[in-house]
Amino acid sequence: MDRRSFLRTSALGGVAATSTALAAPVYAQGNRTLTMVTSVPDGFAIFDDAATMVANAITEMTDGQLTINKMPAGSLVGAFEVFDAVSSGQADLYHSAEYYFLNQHPAFAFFTSVPFGMTGVELLAWYYHKGGREHHHELASLFNLKPFLAGNTSMQSGGWFNAEINSAEDLQGLRFRMPGQGGQVLGRLGASVQTIPGGEIYQALASGQIDGAEWIGPFADERMGFQEVTSIYYTAGFHEPGSALALSMNMDVWNSLTSAQQRVVEAAAEATHANNMGLSWAENGAALARLQSAGVQVREFPDDVWDAFGRGAAEVREENMGDPIYAKIANSYFAALAETSAWWEIGDGEYIRQRNRVNAA
Amino acid sequence: MDRRSFLRTSALGGVAATSTALAAPVYAQGNRTLTMVTSVPDGFAIFDDAATMVANAITEMTDGQLTINKMPAGSLVGAFEVFDAVSSGQADLYHSAEYYFLNQHPAFAFFTSVPFGMTGVELLAWYYHKGGREHHHELASLFNLKPFLAGNTSMQSGGWFNAEINSAEDLQGLRFRMPGQGGQVLGRLGASVQTIPGGEIYQALASGQIDGAEWIGPFADERMGFQEVTSIYYTAGFHEPGSALALSMNMDVWNSLTSAQQRVVEAAAEATHANNMGLSWAENGAALARLQSAGVQVREFPDDVWDAFGRGAAEVREENMGDPIYAKIANSYFAALAETSAWWEIGDGEYIRQRNRVNAA
Repeated sequence: MDRRSFLRTSALGGVAATSTALAAPVYAQGNRTLTMVTSVPDGFAIFDDAATMVANAITEMTDGQLTINKMPAGSLVGAFEVFDAVSSGQADLYHSAEYYFLNQHPAFAFFTSVPFGMTGVELLAWYYHKGGREHHHELASLFNLKPFLAGNTSMQSGGWFNAEINSAEDLQGLRFRMPGQGGQVLGRLGASVQTIPGGEIYQALASGQIDGAEWIGPFADERMGFQEVTSIYYTAGFHEPGSALALSMNMDVWNSLTSAQQRVVEAAAEATHANNMGLSWAENGAALARLQSAGVQVREFPDDVWDAFGRGAAEVREENMGDPIYAKIANSYFAALAETSAWWEIGDGEYIRQRNRVNAA
Repeated sequence: MDRRSFLRTSALGGVAATSTALAAPVYAQGNRTLTMVTSVPDGFAIFDDAATMVANAITEMTDGQLTINKMPAGSLVGAFEVFDAVSSGQADLYHSAEYYFLNQHPAFAFFTSVPFGMTGVELLAWYYHKGGREHHHELASLFNLKPFLAGNTSMQSGGWFNAEINSAEDLQGLRFRMPGQGGQVLGRLGASVQTIPGGEIYQALASGQIDGAEWIGPFADERMGFQEVTSIYYTAGFHEPGSALALSMNMDVWNSLTSAQQRVVEAAAEATHANNMGLSWAENGAALARLQSAGVQVREFPDDVWDAFGRGAAEVREENMGDPIYAKIANSYFAALAETSAWWEIGDGEYIRQRNRVNAA
């Protein structure tokens, strides 16, 4: 038996480590299987694409020393139970969106997306180079977790409605699915906001439980089939201008990894971030055209509805500033955003304006 | 002696493999050192940050099984000789910008940036999801190379000038440093274009050998010290709206790696792409403010100069279309760009317009 075969069949293969008692270097132990719980069903576009990519990357880069067993929402724990499951050690890591866990701490919002916040590339700047990653690690460590961004949906659409939104009054009483701070903003504007896992939105729309919903963008939304049960689609939304997905590992499991394995997890997440950020951009244009061919009416919110979103967002932004952790992260985030958005004006913004003008000539 | 010590001291440690004769699994061989040549000096902002990150990531993820020895421009071969050095097996891999190698094949332009082409996120879409990566592999395989994007400078500035550019006539006879298709465009507009490695631009400007130069953007340009020798700075440029950097490995070396090691190289490059793309965004705003405080005058090109750039770019874009490889890649690239730029208009573009409007209110 050669060494590789020995590793694959040794006694500890397949056993998930959940404590530092297993901290000896893994090549002396054989392969480990780590259970990764997610917040969506298998096969969900964009979101599960990221989960699958990061799981496979870790498994393949370690030649199976760390074999990631992905368990979709509902198979081990529910979509929104992944945080507590990993924090407690019931599962080894999760792949999800951090803003599902605002009840654990409101500052998790910044590691997905916040209203009038950063686009995808702006988040890359803050997260990797202006302290965002360190804030993320510090916050999650309070919950026995080691987190990394591992995906990005890019700009999210305003969502699906049964009637046009012509003024802020049209939001009154609207039963609408939107998680995170975006949902809190809609609530302040009079909507009845519901946080429903991705896998349950279609049924909620089809049954009339809700009047409308946002999910991701044209490509992912089309795969959900929302065009079968509602017909008005708003493109740019205020609520999630570049939503990151995240991998988060139980801290004891993290501490049991070798430093090389830790670097594999970190790089797999970062690679998934780049790859997944491009996926929506690659597919949204063609998907939107198909939706329109199928009869979906595409709209943009009028300025005064954006103004109402802005007023609600400013209120929500302030209401957690009494929490010192939240305030520290928020101040870091918005300081970075002010710099990137100013650069955008004379960088990408000016370039794209000229590209469009010259190409149209 | 434990196994790890054994691996670190075994006979083959430190010897670079350059043929498939060494294709047996590496854990049976000990550590290998691979020589990575680059096109910039050590420490150059953005560019060498990416080279250093990808080299360290490979070394750390493999626990030194693959130890990358980065050799900056001029230490083993010159900045623009890295392609031939790796193709021939003199070095194992390079980190550079593919558009330095248009003489080897003009289609390498698409794997850095082309005039009026993709921004950084648009390139992510094409490269990872619309065939760009596969085109890159096919093109480079003609030269015995296995390439991966591994960095991105984001939007590049128009560059440094000694006098304002108020019309296309002001480009006549201008001795200007600009590589790639951008330089070909300036040449058509009457400039005397020079392709000078990054490490030699300052001296060329200071000595009067050239009248002006573009490099990357405010953060990287400030570190080069161009503000000491010229004073007018144009922000958005037409020539490189989101320039990728690339790692490329000798194909025989690539084939000698285990599949796990191949995945490490791939993911290290992709992680570097995400990380590095954010770096310019994170630093450019503050750097530009410092440059202005130091007396640099910031300008934008007037519309009719952009129109001239557009005419030149259209000519350059067409001139290689008789080459079937170039044409295939160009058609793929511009089809993807048409989709992403249309989505931009109703996605990020609409969102940023509203964000700016609401925040200004």
